[in-house]
Amino acid sequence: MCVDFYFDFISPFGFFASLQIDALAARHGYGVRWHSMLIGVSVLKVMGMKPLLETPLKGPYTVRDAQRHARKLGLQLGRKVDDPLADPRPAGKAFHWMQQHEPRISKAFAQGVFHAYWMDGKDISQAQVLTEVLADLCPARSGDIAAMQGEEAAALLRQSVDASLARGVFGSPFFLVGDEPFFGVEKLGQLDEWLAGGGW
Amino acid sequence: MCVDFYFDFISPFGFFASLQIDALAARHGYGVRWHSMLIGVSVLKVMGMKPLLETPLKGPYTVRDAQRHARKLGLQLGRKVDDPLADPRPAGKAFHWMQQHEPRISKAFAQGVFHAYWMDGKDISQAQVLTEVLADLCPARSGDIAAMQGEEAAALLRQSVDASLARGVFGSPFFLVGDEPFFGVEKLGQLDEWLAGGGW
Repeated sequence: MCVDFYFDFISPFGFFASLQIDALAARHGYGVRWHSMLIGVSVLKVMGMKPLLETPLKGPYTVRDAQRHARKLGLQLGRKVDDPLADPRPAGKAFHWMQQHEPRISKAFAQGVFHAYWMDGKDISQAQVLTEVLADLCPARSGDIAAMQGEEAAALLRQSVDASLARGVFGSPFFLVGDEPFFGVEKLGQLDEWLAGGGW
Repeated sequence: MCVDFYFDFISPFGFFASLQIDALAARHGYGVRWHSMLIGVSVLKVMGMKPLLETPLKGPYTVRDAQRHARKLGLQLGRKVDDPLADPRPAGKAFHWMQQHEPRISKAFAQGVFHAYWMDGKDISQAQVLTEVLADLCPARSGDIAAMQGEEAAALLRQSVDASLARGVFGSPFFLVGDEPFFGVEKLGQLDEWLAGGGW
């Protein structure tokens, strides 16, 4: 039994969820499949919405809410929530390439990318930064960073984003248990109840 | 000590929160001040957003999420979440008039309006429905329904909406503990922790 976990590397709420979802699911005997999404790049266009941080009222609230979550989790973020966002596509391509070619460490790679961006404040759109993350995990693969930005990787990311959209995924984090959708880090509590009781 | 609770009568999530917020706050020694808002009528225009139910991907999710909350709370709703919405202004005017003239029963009036709309499926934009709600609470006031739709009531509602916007309120439900904002029924858990520990 699996939970599908969708995230955007540049979403702080996706990062916060990434720190909690595997342990939460494991308590109920579930595994977690990770999927990187492109919310600002793709999904918001489908929805006809502007970026969250540029939305009056909700933008400032979102910054404050993310800071509050970070404090609660005891995290000293390495970047401000409202700093300019990195392009998440290079990391997304690399992650999906890893899922294809090194599936056993692809989740650890995603965790490394999240950490590099949110804790170390690094620019994850840079191949050098992705190479560093990879070198920590699997030095034998660190020469493959060019392939991870190539056509195959781009196609894998595109397919994954399309498949996620087809399943109704529109935010980060987003969870699916079978067809049951849960949007937002605030849903971890309800998801916990859902997994415990088999739904209602 | 008080929690400010903002809701729109036609928001199912506002209704769900209305059933829980007073007991939650009371557990921590807090009272609750209720404020009716106009999300679709006023706030979304400020934000430059279209109505939630008309937003691709998020609209269908929201319907499903509301139904899931209703099942969890054991509620048999008297209307569908995606039925056409009533105009919330008549109820908002009446509520703010009650706050001014019958403050001791204004919260019970709001609860009655929520129940009439969500449980009984009544059209709360109709004066007759508001009169019935009022007659159940305070027969002596049930002749005042015309006044509750008059200029004073309209001005009170307008002032309240403007004051809420000035405090950054943009959704239903929305909670403020001092200046600390919490948006969404999903935030009840975090709000509970916040009130318990005095924030973090």
